[in-house]
Amino acid sequence: MIRFNCDYSEGAHPRILELMQQTNLEQCPGYGEDSHCDRARALIRKACGGAPVEVHFMVGGTQTNLTVISGLLRPHQGVISAASGHIGVHETGAIEATGHKVLTLPSSDGKITAAQVEALLDEHWHDETHQHMVQPGMVYISLPTELGTIYQKSELTALYQVCRKNHLPLYIDGARLGYGLAAAGCDFDLADLCALCDCFYIGGTKQGALLGEALVLCRPQLLPDFRYLMKQRGGMLAKGKLLGLQFEALFSDGLYFQLSRHAVEMADRIAATCQKKGIPPLVVTGTNQLFYIFSDEALTALQQKYAFSYWGRVDERHSAVRICTSWATTETDVDSLCADIAAL
Amino acid sequence: MIRFNCDYSEGAHPRILELMQQTNLEQCPGYGEDSHCDRARALIRKACGGAPVEVHFMVGGTQTNLTVISGLLRPHQGVISAASGHIGVHETGAIEATGHKVLTLPSSDGKITAAQVEALLDEHWHDETHQHMVQPGMVYISLPTELGTIYQKSELTALYQVCRKNHLPLYIDGARLGYGLAAAGCDFDLADLCALCDCFYIGGTKQGALLGEALVLCRPQLLPDFRYLMKQRGGMLAKGKLLGLQFEALFSDGLYFQLSRHAVEMADRIAATCQKKGIPPLVVTGTNQLFYIFSDEALTALQQKYAFSYWGRVDERHSAVRICTSWATTETDVDSLCADIAAL
Amino acid sequence: MIRFNCDYSEGAHPRILELMQQTNLEQCPGYGEDSHCDRARALIRKACGGAPVEVHFMVGGTQTNLTVISGLLRPHQGVISAASGHIGVHETGAIEATGHKVLTLPSSDGKITAAQVEALLDEHWHDETHQHMVQPGMVYISLPTELGTIYQKSELTALYQVCRKNHLPLYIDGARLGYGLAAAGCDFDLADLCALCDCFYIGGTKQGALLGEALVLCRPQLLPDFRYLMKQRGGMLAKGKLLGLQFEALFSDGLYFQLSRHAVEMADRIAATCQKKGIPPLVVTGTNQLFYIFSDEALTALQQKYAFSYWGRVDERHSAVRICTSWATTETDVDSLCADIAAL
Amino acid sequence: MIRFNCDYSEGAHPRILELMQQTNLEQCPGYGEDSHCDRARALIRKACGGAPVEVHFMVGGTQTNLTVISGLLRPHQGVISAASGHIGVHETGAIEATGHKVLTLPSSDGKITAAQVEALLDEHWHDETHQHMVQPGMVYISLPTELGTIYQKSELTALYQVCRKNHLPLYIDGARLGYGLAAAGCDFDLADLCALCDCFYIGGTKQGALLGEALVLCRPQLLPDFRYLMKQRGGMLAKGKLLGLQFEALFSDGLYFQLSRHAVEMADRIAATCQKKGIPPLVVTGTNQLFYIFSDEALTALQQKYAFSYWGRVDERHSAVRICTSWATTETDVDSLCADIAAL
Repeated sequence: MIRFNCDYSEGAHPRILELMQQTNLEQCPGYGEDSHCDRARALIRKACGGAPVEVHFMVGGTQTNLTVISGLLRPHQGVISAASGHIGVHETGAIEATGHKVLTLPSSDGKITAAQVEALLDEHWHDETHQHMVQPGMVYISLPTELGTIYQKSELTALYQVCRKNHLPLYIDGARLGYGLAAAGCDFDLADLCALCDCFYIGGTKQGALLGEALVLCRPQLLPDFRYLMKQRGGMLAKGKLLGLQFEALFSDGLYFQLSRHAVEMADRIAATCQKKGIPPLVVTGTNQLFYIFSDEALTALQQKYAFSYWGRVDERHSAVRICTSWATTETDVDSLCADIAAL
Repeated sequence: MIRFNCDYSEGAHPRILELMQQTNLEQCPGYGEDSHCDRARALIRKACGGAPVEVHFMVGGTQTNLTVISGLLRPHQGVISAASGHIGVHETGAIEATGHKVLTLPSSDGKITAAQVEALLDEHWHDETHQHMVQPGMVYISLPTELGTIYQKSELTALYQVCRKNHLPLYIDGARLGYGLAAAGCDFDLADLCALCDCFYIGGTKQGALLGEALVLCRPQLLPDFRYLMKQRGGMLAKGKLLGLQFEALFSDGLYFQLSRHAVEMADRIAATCQKKGIPPLVVTGTNQLFYIFSDEALTALQQKYAFSYWGRVDERHSAVRICTSWATTETDVDSLCADIAAL
Repeated sequence: MIRFNCDYSEGAHPRILELMQQTNLEQCPGYGEDSHCDRARALIRKACGGAPVEVHFMVGGTQTNLTVISGLLRPHQGVISAASGHIGVHETGAIEATGHKVLTLPSSDGKITAAQVEALLDEHWHDETHQHMVQPGMVYISLPTELGTIYQKSELTALYQVCRKNHLPLYIDGARLGYGLAAAGCDFDLADLCALCDCFYIGGTKQGALLGEALVLCRPQLLPDFRYLMKQRGGMLAKGKLLGLQFEALFSDGLYFQLSRHAVEMADRIAATCQKKGIPPLVVTGTNQLFYIFSDEALTALQQKYAFSYWGRVDERHSAVRICTSWATTETDVDSLCADIAAL
Repeated sequence: MIRFNCDYSEGAHPRILELMQQTNLEQCPGYGEDSHCDRARALIRKACGGAPVEVHFMVGGTQTNLTVISGLLRPHQGVISAASGHIGVHETGAIEATGHKVLTLPSSDGKITAAQVEALLDEHWHDETHQHMVQPGMVYISLPTELGTIYQKSELTALYQVCRKNHLPLYIDGARLGYGLAAAGCDFDLADLCALCDCFYIGGTKQGALLGEALVLCRPQLLPDFRYLMKQRGGMLAKGKLLGLQFEALFSDGLYFQLSRHAVEMADRIAATCQKKGIPPLVVTGTNQLFYIFSDEALTALQQKYAFSYWGRVDERHSAVRICTSWATTETDVDSLCADIAAL
């Protein structure tokens, strides 16, 4: 079985394992205060164009989301998100468990717009009984979204303007950020991003690391005492070096961006094959996540050999699946899949 | 200005004030352990047909809802509710503040069905990643609903069967329970209700009391140690006698039911006038809350003299309003409103 | 049985009941936006010497405490309190239920000192692992304390200076504030208090009202959106007028202060009798709460006729009890008790 | 600088890195459902004497503690712990952040006794106002404790009997469990432990793994749906295999026990040297954590070369430090330290 169902099937990029091996018996201070973490922070700051950002290494995405969001909101506030947003669907109510409601906006492609946020704010503040309702307190988006789509720079700019005007922090879940930045249609880079939101995280787990996400606070004054919050939520790893060294490896010699491009190229090849074959996309993405609609017969045939992520029934005879590539996807496996799709 | 905008504009029924006056300087134990609370509990149990229910007196509706719901759920569970449910809209995220998500079902009349709950459960349990999603842990309905509608006995029976089969407690928010029981279309009574859900509360605040709700636990084993929970959430009144004596008065000589009938009769008269005049209802209720669609001109005229609760725009020239009667609504005020509607 | 066990055995002062009676059928807006609440707020502001304070009416003490404290703290912060503080002992973990630790300081008389707070802060900030510990985020004191004692103006001044220097809000639980202000040893008044802390509440429940506490925000910018917080915690009463009118009555013609003085005079008389008789105090208070140590035989004899609050065993043959007076305590009852103590 | 300050300075045991390397590009299902996790679970069950325990792999200790404790308690309940317990001191209020109070018992050696728990329960249940106080809901102990001490089998047996009799789950924090089991004075093994508590975790982070703790539920019916709870608290690693394979390596061929014994032997050697030299222990441990009292001069000299963990001032001229060994401590470093102590 060849797995295209997700982007966290394998371990880590060899250069990470190598660095782990080399430095294994070094004695380091714990809790993210070692030299590997320091170097990784410096490398990330540099990749961010030298912006005076604060960088913290967290264990996983759910934890990063719940720590940041509960740190930014007051008790009566909620976080605005697309209805399909990871925090509202696939984190077992982690945000609610910290006391806050997820205020959802409808979205067909996983994105939300400045206009939608503005309308929700208008509605809230114009309701006479607004004190009886959760106050919108911040905005969460994922980039790429859960549907693999990415925002244009102009969309982010508009969204962030509405946020700033209304004193709502904008936080970006970048579990697959590299795959988004590597997409052909992406018109901004990491440095731009630092001016387009208040905080975001650079996903490691799905992008070549064993685990770990690098949280970037573009305006650290919004989240003072962040290390207390990390510790409280169980997100401060004793052997923090394990997180630091992975980002050290990923942000040395452009490895992170190189791995991201590889995954996107692999996905592009599959997308081209599907297009040629006339298999319709559920949504057009450009990133490492593809969503295609197959006939049930075709799917049954392909699934003998390949694992996909089932997305939903489209009509009586067709279903949508998610096909994921990653830094670890081999050309051989992609060639094999493309051939089998072409032969359907 | 004559207020028809809500059912909590006035103080309390005179018999309540009288009993307060008479017993004012009695020395009582605090926290609901006085003889007035005891008598009120006995009277409510009797009105419940003698079922072995546990009765607690709480200060208000939001507090009752959050105490009961957080007491019934484990951390990873959420409460199923109509999207229009009070807990999901008008309690400033009180449920989320205790750590739990409100899982909403769409509803055009404020009610949810057994089939909807069953479908949501199926969807949850058949999803391979269900452990990544909030687990449905109980069901909340309001009776009458936020749209003034009531459930039929058969609907409640079906809903409770699904709940019992799936080990989901069913809790009924009865802020206006009396007005529901007094509706012409209601085919069950308090005693029936005890066998149709796990717990419910009998609203006092909107039904003739100054404040207070009587929570009835039909299966008290589901909420052991309830008095601890009340105290923790700030819902255990030091001078608990104030709550007890109000329910003592309301449940003596059928006063509660009599006041409820009065409000419904007043509403029925207004409804009849609207019908005669051809003013369309937004939804047909039968209880003390009416929802009618007026032209904006008509509304402007009526609002010179009467306060309604604005509900929403229906089209460019029409809006829906909520008209509420209560135990305190006078025939004079209703006659006046009916005359003015008839004269539109 | 004559109750001296607490100060919430009776109903409300007759002037309150009178005002309720007179205004019972007035139609008012809900949720604290009626004219009685407005008048009460103005009267309290006046009693506070005209300071630009914000006043909110809450249902009870536990709720006021949990709403204020959870509104002031960030997730990783805790509230400093005497170990005997009400929030740490007798509120069933209400503060913890909002996510925050109570950081306790030892105290033999219920008070804490500026030096103690400073030492705790030093210890926290000098610990290398302080990010692994709860950060002190505010200070809670009760006045009078749970042991009936009061702070001197100089003590409060020193405490508040430490708080301001360290950016810790100081909040005062004034469940029995009037009884404290009426004590012979009290060297400050309500107006002074507004400059000696960031917020405090004026207790109603134990001071002549049926229920209700008036929260005074001396620096309202520390708790923006307070009405959202009240609603979320179930503390915003629909018929808010009930709270407003009680404080309207209590703060008209100095009633609040007059009732407080009465209770303290009654307590002073009992204290004088005990002193004469050589019955030792557990702690000297000056307020409406007395703590005396009786032999077990004496206690058994007195308890045939009087209810006290058992406080704890002192030695094999002696126990301490709390004796409470209130606005409602009669001279007859006090004379009777004094005679019986004298005759022991 | 040679680090004896903690037991998490180095990376992982070479066999773990080897297994990671060998299996790095295997494609695995995520979230702990891979074959390495399965094998590790089987190995741990075997080491537990074949008891039908449930095993979950969590990222770190704070997260394990907060997930287990919040999963076991109802809202009004707290967890009993030694005042020195990790959850009460060094987790930034993680337990309170889930809504629960830590109920502390005094302890000079880090342990609590059955008699202490029984006394606390008696006190709670005999207090007339117990509903106003947090209800004891479970017991937490650490083994070894934060002071390096271990429980005797008879002490655990007595403690668990009190727990079972009172329906309080007993949970053991085993961050350094192996070092405890390897102590000369330990009179029980892993299999015994399964009958002496309701759940415990086998620490990985401090015992040779990069990160990860293996939670063992001896009575899994107490924590149904545990995987939901893990996910909600951010404790379910996407690449769960990383945790599984480490415990697979540690529990193959007795590696875990072998590493534990090594650390204890190293510590024993240091302890013997101190004893010979007449340096007094703060507490006698037998595990990998030693607590010795040095003169300030001696300490200053040693700290030129060695890092210890400062524990506290003992008198004007003496301080206590913690000296930690681990699986990675070399004989050379220990020889060097012993020589330097002997030469003081």
